[in-house]
Amino acid sequence: MRTYLDCYPCFIRQALEAARWIGADEAAQKLLLDRVLKLLGKVELSSTPPQIGDRVHRLVRESLGDGDPYRSFKQDATREALDLYPRMEALAAEAADPLEAAVRLSIAGNIIDAGFSHRYDLWGTVERVMSQPFAVEHLAALRGALAGARSALYLADNAGETVFDRPLIQRLGLPVIYAVKGGPVLNDATMEDARAAGLEAGVRLLSTGSDAPGTILERCSQEFREVYGRSELVIAKGQANYETLSEEGPRVFFLLQAKCPIVARDLEVEVGGIVLRQGGRE
Amino acid sequence: MRTYLDCYPCFIRQALEAARWIGADEAAQKLLLDRVLKLLGKVELSSTPPQIGDRVHRLVRESLGDGDPYRSFKQDATREALDLYPRMEALAAEAADPLEAAVRLSIAGNIIDAGFSHRYDLWGTVERVMSQPFAVEHLAALRGALAGARSALYLADNAGETVFDRPLIQRLGLPVIYAVKGGPVLNDATMEDARAAGLEAGVRLLSTGSDAPGTILERCSQEFREVYGRSELVIAKGQANYETLSEEGPRVFFLLQAKCPIVARDLEVEVGGIVLRQGGRE
Repeated sequence: MRTYLDCYPCFIRQALEAARWIGADEAAQKLLLDRVLKLLGKVELSSTPPQIGDRVHRLVRESLGDGDPYRSFKQDATREALDLYPRMEALAAEAADPLEAAVRLSIAGNIIDAGFSHRYDLWGTVERVMSQPFAVEHLAALRGALAGARSALYLADNAGETVFDRPLIQRLGLPVIYAVKGGPVLNDATMEDARAAGLEAGVRLLSTGSDAPGTILERCSQEFREVYGRSELVIAKGQANYETLSEEGPRVFFLLQAKCPIVARDLEVEVGGIVLRQGGRE
Repeated sequence: MRTYLDCYPCFIRQALEAARWIGADEAAQKLLLDRVLKLLGKVELSSTPPQIGDRVHRLVRESLGDGDPYRSFKQDATREALDLYPRMEALAAEAADPLEAAVRLSIAGNIIDAGFSHRYDLWGTVERVMSQPFAVEHLAALRGALAGARSALYLADNAGETVFDRPLIQRLGLPVIYAVKGGPVLNDATMEDARAAGLEAGVRLLSTGSDAPGTILERCSQEFREVYGRSELVIAKGQANYETLSEEGPRVFFLLQAKCPIVARDLEVEVGGIVLRQGGRE
């Protein structure tokens, strides 16, 4: 998905919020924003939003002198999600359709997104998403793909959201490779964050080798690209993975909440819509 | 009121919306935004937001080659407000406290604000504002000032909002000078817009001599500054007039809806709050 001019205000807001999150003073905030303004003056709209986000958040980390400004945000989110884990696992276990319930839980966890908002109501979102009609629902196709695949590659999104992926991973009925970022960007989950969320048990953890948001394949490691290339089924979490992989065809299933109006328009859903979408379909 | 970094995304959004409003293509939109980004890289935060808005919207008009991009927006708003005029006048006439009702109507009209949003529900806003508790209510002070003054200077805000000022102007019990912008900026009312809103009858129309948002005194004409200087009572509509005149003391009364979180914080009210505030008071 390409970038739109509507994304500019959002990139600036993200940089400002990151600076404030780590308590940078206004002079440091302004220095950072001046650099982001210069950068945005040079971007190509044919890039995907994560390609620009990669450069913006690299500036954020360099300019603020903090390699992981969202560390405490990620730790808080993971802790809160872990507290809810028994309740979410019970929801999935007791559901009439455990796979659908686990898909919904995974999508509910996508509310944890520092690029969108620093505030969220985690259990309130679970309750909403468990009963909300899907805006796009390719569940039958996902069941078919699960029946035919030998393993699944699961592209993680944000720290804490990772915990919400666990009930689904356990119900895929396949060996799972769980891919996380190669380094900190926004509140995206890294190897360390995934381990803190209890993701080691029962899955193979793999780094994408890239610290860009989403999955920018040419930025990923050779090892990741090989794993990706031979995967029969890919589960891609969150907006940034949709933005970078939306053209990748039917083996990719996107699970997300459409939080941004531009992504929502691209998906042809309303803002707030919950989406399980198979790539390559209308 | 000074500018905050939070204003940057808003200026960019305003420029983009202006470009789209007149149907500029994406290349023209991007050219404009690149110029706005450069401008924002040079601003001083000690400026008020309208001082920066003045420069941003000058760029908008120059870059788009349209001296009044909001012309049709203003005409539509004025027409819609005029259609509602009999109903609003009846509300004020039948109210237990006609002055308070007219103040509320004037504040309700402040929802027409292209800098905030291109969409609004005009009569829905009237119904809300007629019953909503004031966030700041210096009505007794306004009554006192009206009893002691020989005339009032009324600083207009947006086209269409002008119509909502008429019931109040008629109930001030004083000769009124109604000041409008010296040229188009955003959807602010100019002389032409005020005449289209029926503001000629019973008031003296005066241009501020400036096409900046709000009232930047050093940018106004000598004539306006003299009128302003000797006014015993000034009624200042909208956020931009508050942003530029907030330090001006007790003869100025601000009437507005706090639509922007930064203005709301400065006023110590919630977003959405309705405000009748005397200058120089805590």
